[in-house]
Amino acid sequence: MNNKEVAIIGGGPSGVTSAIYLKRYGMEPVLFEKDMIGGKTNYTERIENYPGYLEEKGPVLAERFLDQLRKLQIKPIYSAVESLSLNPDGTFHLVSKKKEGDYRYVILANGLSERPFPLEGEEKFNRRGISRCAICDGPFYKGKDVLVIGSGNAAFEEANYLATICSSVSLIARRTFFRADRAAIDRFRSFSNTAIYAPYEVVSVFGKESLEKAVIRNKESGERKELPCSGLFLYVGQIPALDYLKIDGVQDEKGYLIVNPETMETKVSHLYAVGDCRETALRQVTTAVSDGSLAATKIHEDFLSSNKE
Amino acid sequence: MNNKEVAIIGGGPSGVTSAIYLKRYGMEPVLFEKDMIGGKTNYTERIENYPGYLEEKGPVLAERFLDQLRKLQIKPIYSAVESLSLNPDGTFHLVSKKKEGDYRYVILANGLSERPFPLEGEEKFNRRGISRCAICDGPFYKGKDVLVIGSGNAAFEEANYLATICSSVSLIARRTFFRADRAAIDRFRSFSNTAIYAPYEVVSVFGKESLEKAVIRNKESGERKELPCSGLFLYVGQIPALDYLKIDGVQDEKGYLIVNPETMETKVSHLYAVGDCRETALRQVTTAVSDGSLAATKIHEDFLSSNKE
Repeated sequence: MNNKEVAIIGGGPSGVTSAIYLKRYGMEPVLFEKDMIGGKTNYTERIENYPGYLEEKGPVLAERFLDQLRKLQIKPIYSAVESLSLNPDGTFHLVSKKKEGDYRYVILANGLSERPFPLEGEEKFNRRGISRCAICDGPFYKGKDVLVIGSGNAAFEEANYLATICSSVSLIARRTFFRADRAAIDRFRSFSNTAIYAPYEVVSVFGKESLEKAVIRNKESGERKELPCSGLFLYVGQIPALDYLKIDGVQDEKGYLIVNPETMETKVSHLYAVGDCRETALRQVTTAVSDGSLAATKIHEDFLSSNKE
Repeated sequence: MNNKEVAIIGGGPSGVTSAIYLKRYGMEPVLFEKDMIGGKTNYTERIENYPGYLEEKGPVLAERFLDQLRKLQIKPIYSAVESLSLNPDGTFHLVSKKKEGDYRYVILANGLSERPFPLEGEEKFNRRGISRCAICDGPFYKGKDVLVIGSGNAAFEEANYLATICSSVSLIARRTFFRADRAAIDRFRSFSNTAIYAPYEVVSVFGKESLEKAVIRNKESGERKELPCSGLFLYVGQIPALDYLKIDGVQDEKGYLIVNPETMETKVSHLYAVGDCRETALRQVTTAVSDGSLAATKIHEDFLSSNKE
């Protein structure tokens, strides 16, 4: 086993940053990515809040990450990790289709997966009206009518944010009991430009070039309504994509990885988690790149001090 | 007093990010900068470890920050803050030459200042041989012999730049263990016109009109050497620039601001600190932009919940 090798699972902003930092520290990052380098930036229409980045297109930022890896001669292994387990000696055993091996250090950077939400007509408006991030995309719907689907804290909190910038915000919930905090719900109701439809579900979405309207259906009476909307924000939940992880006791009850926020290390020594898959209040490109640099720095320090002993 | 206004002291990466996020949240950032937007990126020759940024020139990244502020219609106030104090009602009173006022929220983002480095004969050569900025002053030493004092990233990175324009570059380090990244050290060693003296210290400097030579001393053997040099670049460390801060109990013994690492709030309610001036193990553009987004998000949440009450 090569102690300088660090397995990084996931090539989004946090995984890419981990790799860049480790390489520059003289370590050997082994970056596993099952899909595309750049993670969710590939699926974000515009990115206005990553400082120094003015091109705005999410996929262009993803390309730049890839260019930067090439420049540093880091070649991602395009393969899904199928299992990660702890060896008796405290090292980790990693299995993917293309590569299997043991590592002393592992960084979990696999982000979140969207909870599936089937909706007729949805594919057409992905990135042209349908979004899962009000903070990222909300400003593009300034002065327009939008829908929010969901009834948890994320749905209400983001709907409250949208209510301050959009012409109207209608929240669609499948049940009349909402999981969100009372405060968030009350605040949503306090706006003059908001409405709640419950128990309703969205049946289908329409529009020529971009989203124009949605059809919703009352789940009790079956009655249908047409709501004009330029944006539709889905808060039906995301889940950490950690089926492959065979190590107990490092996740919270929702599945997020718990880390020391100053080092990104989990309570299992040499196992780190960065980016969206860790428990945190804010998931952004800014926070992801910080996570990656902190984890890489801690691993490098650990490597230096253990090699000195 | 406008509760939506947030005073940000310092326009480096962390302050700029705070402003970008606050503006996008619908708040009103009031950004004070005494010198140039971009902070230390203005004085960094190459930036290779900010993900997505491939141009490498530090000052170019600084220009992009400025462009981004312009795009969001954030106009920095170019004025040094002279004092910040706590009002009896828990708000803050800020005084600068161009603007004086009260704020409910303040973000300290003023970075670090150069640490004094007493050196026999130094006063004589300030600006005539002794410098703290290779990018600013390096070109004056084209084809000449220079010394660099320090062993961190700044010392090696700037020494690497100097190696491309100067006749020779000697790096003087007090210890044989260097804090800099492996990549920066390797690059320095790869030049044919560079040398490292460690563990050495500079004892004194001499010259008629301008700097001509330095005497260095081996810290173990006591042996002295004379090195001819026209320029001497100091990278001996930095300290938080907080003379203006009239609020007690928020700094550690070295002067760094102590914050909750998940929110960036100090123990004084509504007073935040981000970037290099806060106590942290890693000071990078990556961590600075994360700090800024976390502080802005927490302030916005606080603003929303207090306006609801």
